[in-house]
Amino acid sequence: MAKKTKNNVVFRIWFFVDDEKLLGKGRVELLERIEKGGSIASAAKEMKMSYRQAWQMVSEMNQRARKKLVVKQLGGKSGGGATVTEEGKEAIKCFRELENKTRMFLEKEYKKLKF
Amino acid sequence: MAKKTKNNVVFRIWFFVDDEKLLGKGRVELLERIEKGGSIASAAKEMKMSYRQAWQMVSEMNQRARKKLVVKQLGGKSGGGATVTEEGKEAIKCFRELENKTRMFLEKEYKKLKF
Repeated sequence: MAKKTKNNVVFRIWFFVDDEKLLGKGRVELLERIEKGGSIASAAKEMKMSYRQAWQMVSEMNQRARKKLVVKQLGGKSGGGATVTEEGKEAIKCFRELENKTRMFLEKEYKKLKF
Repeated sequence: MAKKTKNNVVFRIWFFVDDEKLLGKGRVELLERIEKGGSIASAAKEMKMSYRQAWQMVSEMNQRARKKLVVKQLGGKSGGGATVTEEGKEAIKCFRELENKTRMFLEKEYKKLKF
């Protein structure tokens, strides 16, 4: 009897600006966590990244997008927080939407393949 | 005046079998080059891989696919060649087809996004 196997298709998408990466899965997750927790430091920690790494990602996104996706607040003892801008929220929404649509599209198309 | 930028979406797809990678862009290119040149060694060289690396990829594909995608011929002084099987040709065709469809889908959907 043939071994039963599970075949499937896996994908990744990225948004690019002028041949440079603007957004991918990891960056969108970072934005979502900043939005939820209001802090780059805590988002970085949740994703097991250094603050430096997370800030580098935020900084690149801010430079490459039309408008900043994240703004930092200066503030008291805690060192202030960070907010995802309207542009940033739009970025998250667009990326997740396209990701979901692509998932549905690929699942449907993959089933049609005789492979 | 705002800097003119070129925004676009980039993607990759992979075929998986039982949570292990069967095919991706690189492996399909390897299969195509083996099909064209009839040799794993020359395909490896064209892709700037070691023979060992290429053979490892072929071996994994052969193990994970339902049927072998590449067969080696034993032969004379040259050490024999390699042939892409019917199953292998089908694999190339299916992957490239899905890749093209996904490209068209994403280009269309990306344009609709306001980002």
